[in-house]
Amino acid sequence: MKDKIRVTVWNENIHERGEGAWADVIRNHYPHGIHNALKEELASPDLEIRAVALDDPEQGLPQDVLENTDTLVWWGHCGHHLVEDSLVDRIQKRVLEGMGLVVLHSGHYSKIFRRMLGTHCSLRWREVGEKERVWVVDKDHPIAQGVPDSFVIPHTEMYGEPFGIPGEAHVVFMSWYEGGNVFRSGVTFRRGQGKIFYFSPGHETFPIYRQPEVVKVIGNAVRWAAQELPNARTVCWDKDPALEPVTSENPMDAVDTSSLHAKA
Amino acid sequence: MKDKIRVTVWNENIHERGEGAWADVIRNHYPHGIHNALKEELASPDLEIRAVALDDPEQGLPQDVLENTDTLVWWGHCGHHLVEDSLVDRIQKRVLEGMGLVVLHSGHYSKIFRRMLGTHCSLRWREVGEKERVWVVDKDHPIAQGVPDSFVIPHTEMYGEPFGIPGEAHVVFMSWYEGGNVFRSGVTFRRGQGKIFYFSPGHETFPIYRQPEVVKVIGNAVRWAAQELPNARTVCWDKDPALEPVTSENPMDAVDTSSLHAKA
Amino acid sequence: MKDKIRVTVWNENIHERGEGAWADVIRNHYPHGIHNALKEELASPDLEIRAVALDDPEQGLPQDVLENTDTLVWWGHCGHHLVEDSLVDRIQKRVLEGMGLVVLHSGHYSKIFRRMLGTHCSLRWREVGEKERVWVVDKDHPIAQGVPDSFVIPHTEMYGEPFGIPGEAHVVFMSWYEGGNVFRSGVTFRRGQGKIFYFSPGHETFPIYRQPEVVKVIGNAVRWAAQELPNARTVCWDKDPALEPVTSENPMDAVDTSSLHAKA
Amino acid sequence: MKDKIRVTVWNENIHERGEGAWADVIRNHYPHGIHNALKEELASPDLEIRAVALDDPEQGLPQDVLENTDTLVWWGHCGHHLVEDSLVDRIQKRVLEGMGLVVLHSGHYSKIFRRMLGTHCSLRWREVGEKERVWVVDKDHPIAQGVPDSFVIPHTEMYGEPFGIPGEAHVVFMSWYEGGNVFRSGVTFRRGQGKIFYFSPGHETFPIYRQPEVVKVIGNAVRWAAQELPNARTVCWDKDPALEPVTSENPMDAVDTSSLHAKA
Repeated sequence: MKDKIRVTVWNENIHERGEGAWADVIRNHYPHGIHNALKEELASPDLEIRAVALDDPEQGLPQDVLENTDTLVWWGHCGHHLVEDSLVDRIQKRVLEGMGLVVLHSGHYSKIFRRMLGTHCSLRWREVGEKERVWVVDKDHPIAQGVPDSFVIPHTEMYGEPFGIPGEAHVVFMSWYEGGNVFRSGVTFRRGQGKIFYFSPGHETFPIYRQPEVVKVIGNAVRWAAQELPNARTVCWDKDPALEPVTSENPMDAVDTSSLHAKA
Repeated sequence: MKDKIRVTVWNENIHERGEGAWADVIRNHYPHGIHNALKEELASPDLEIRAVALDDPEQGLPQDVLENTDTLVWWGHCGHHLVEDSLVDRIQKRVLEGMGLVVLHSGHYSKIFRRMLGTHCSLRWREVGEKERVWVVDKDHPIAQGVPDSFVIPHTEMYGEPFGIPGEAHVVFMSWYEGGNVFRSGVTFRRGQGKIFYFSPGHETFPIYRQPEVVKVIGNAVRWAAQELPNARTVCWDKDPALEPVTSENPMDAVDTSSLHAKA
Repeated sequence: MKDKIRVTVWNENIHERGEGAWADVIRNHYPHGIHNALKEELASPDLEIRAVALDDPEQGLPQDVLENTDTLVWWGHCGHHLVEDSLVDRIQKRVLEGMGLVVLHSGHYSKIFRRMLGTHCSLRWREVGEKERVWVVDKDHPIAQGVPDSFVIPHTEMYGEPFGIPGEAHVVFMSWYEGGNVFRSGVTFRRGQGKIFYFSPGHETFPIYRQPEVVKVIGNAVRWAAQELPNARTVCWDKDPALEPVTSENPMDAVDTSSLHAKA
Repeated sequence: MKDKIRVTVWNENIHERGEGAWADVIRNHYPHGIHNALKEELASPDLEIRAVALDDPEQGLPQDVLENTDTLVWWGHCGHHLVEDSLVDRIQKRVLEGMGLVVLHSGHYSKIFRRMLGTHCSLRWREVGEKERVWVVDKDHPIAQGVPDSFVIPHTEMYGEPFGIPGEAHVVFMSWYEGGNVFRSGVTFRRGQGKIFYFSPGHETFPIYRQPEVVKVIGNAVRWAAQELPNARTVCWDKDPALEPVTSENPMDAVDTSSLHAKA
């Protein structure tokens, strides 16, 4: 492994700059935005953490930042549509090449998460400040190490099933809600060489990213998703030579294909 | 089930209209294009088949055609980039709502296949007219019914591993190539309510879609992917009421959120 | 499909014959045992249902019964160890050949369920008569058809995560419990040609198998798991002829293998 | 991780002690048996390797050996039925607790492999010394690191599809055979806390375990399957207290259950 895992935390950083008492609550929890709060909370000698936001140059992710990111953490909500498709293309390419992707909370509807999964990623939701209990389902998963069997988030936004993700999602955590709902709250996917983790806790008006168990999960996830890429390569193959003798006669050998080659 | 399964075969129909001896070969196999050849070959009393092409109005798939299609069959190659993103959006939405999708051969690189899977769908390839042997791996899958344990395609384009699809692909067929390669040549996926099947045989310069075993597989696939949609629905949820009593106090109840609501 | 799906409901039928007030409660719900209660509740023109018990001849499943069963429903609890290993062998063989298997409640620890999955199938549990809410997670699954988005079981035994099953389980239902737990309460597996469904609701001291939603799920499951078996066959292959020419010289051709053949 | 990964290579060691020219061939490749050959070939400073055989005391795997094994490698063929069921029970328990299991070649029919998967693990086969080409399908898997894109085994026993394993097998390698067959030759599973890898190359009459690429794969696999077990624990749960208040009245509270408790 590299000396340090290079983590980039991306945040749309819109709610944090809103107006009124409601936005004051958010600023009280996250004075410099959720991205900087996560940077503070995740701080560790083995991590090199960058916090970037939607209104930074190139929407916070110029190509050299992406290329020097081992795991990208994503928080977005009301600004999903503001993210440029060309940035989504570039992130997707990097994930397929092996960059880790950790998508948080309302990021379930982000362009990049839907792009990676191909599904609509819809879910039930309710915002009444109810209690959530997060259960570890796969105790042996690296992301669950050091996390108690279950833990409580005192006030949360409810995210409930059915969750519109591919059925093959590997379930690491499941959540119970006071109001009667359940949710696959921590799930992993692999796309190309990249590892993806989605974790639902984290509503902006509650100090969920200040809670040690939540920070533990996210810290585990950025380390799990980061990886050496000895095989990183372009995704297209050249015409491949036969490794075993082909003795079949090719009916096309008798055909003039100059017009084809002229075209291509 | 409905009286008839409504199948729409989409073809970019570009090679078939090319110039020179090479294109004559294709026209010899498929005088009215691959889409119409498949329409002829798949003809059956339980299927209502439409053949459409890229240069038809609305690229062959106006909304009412999509909405009256149970399974869409897709053949494309050099014109992938010509398909409008808005059409890809509309097809994806229909698949998530339950329309079947059967992607053939070079469609592995089509926008819609990559959109549904989130991966680059790359593969090795070679075009020397070699022999392919297709093996049934999951004999009990509906798509394999009536298909021999293995069958030969006398001349084919080689598609070889590694195939850049999600690892959870359910493998129904695997192929052997004279030149030494192997390939997961028939795989299924599910996204939202929709069933997806990819089948690699089918190069344009060989009469592969005139071969009974290949037609059998595609016919099975269009029937397997088609489905009643008793639960078809919009993909977004409204705010959900609590079904169990929430007794936690909501810290946000004390906060003036008028500025938030004004904004939204 | 056959005229009728042949369902066999197996029950250890031990609690129902216990002594005291506690067993009276069970007999009150299920006067002729859980197996006969399910036979009554599932009754339908398309099903031919047999109810059998552990103390029937050959533990209720002589070979001709097994061979004429399309779906086997299993309820056991304190008598798991009484089921003979040779019967488990015979059931496993039939499932691999295509017989459906629906395992209920405490059957999670049955020999046959553990045999099919290879895992210990452990779980958390608690018996305080609390409320359970069952959520549909995969609305489009045949087993979920006609089942409401969620429904309540007023008094249940709690089964909680982590559930020691293979992570690839396809989740159809998830449950919420009043006491704070969650559970993957309805999951499917496929082994060989056989389809398997596990459903957790169903404790003996509560009339859960008299509840319409629960009966609906089990009825859907026996139909989903039953299947025609056009490919049923012995599970061992004979030596297979080469289908393509083998030109490599076999170093063993020069070796006298008479001693090997003498032995075999 | 521990200082060294503790690997135990188990071999039935029957063919190696056979009579005649045929067995001489095997002894020529593996003078001290396949288990000792693998011990030699895998030798590395980070591995502590033990070679054991069926006719060692307690069939080579007394409990303290099992408990001090991080990864167990298994080679068996004609002696599968000689392995005691109680040993299979003990191995299964250790795998579920987190011991790695690497099953080689004809071990596909071993009791322990079938026990872990629940399937019959059948396959096609042919023994004519033909050529095999092994392809890497998942280049980024730890087991594929340092393995070329494809490599040739000059003379092999053919193992062909359909391979009777659960469809969820994660495919790392696929094989091509001169005689026209294909096979998922390297697949992974997870059961409980344990990781399992099956690798098909390795027939006894050919020096396949002397081939560097094959040794590389097996060496990668023993390291991948070995793991720290911070969560190792007994597999049964005690009755679990409610973590959230249960307000439902329990109908069983009014029932005298003394007879039940007397019995249990």
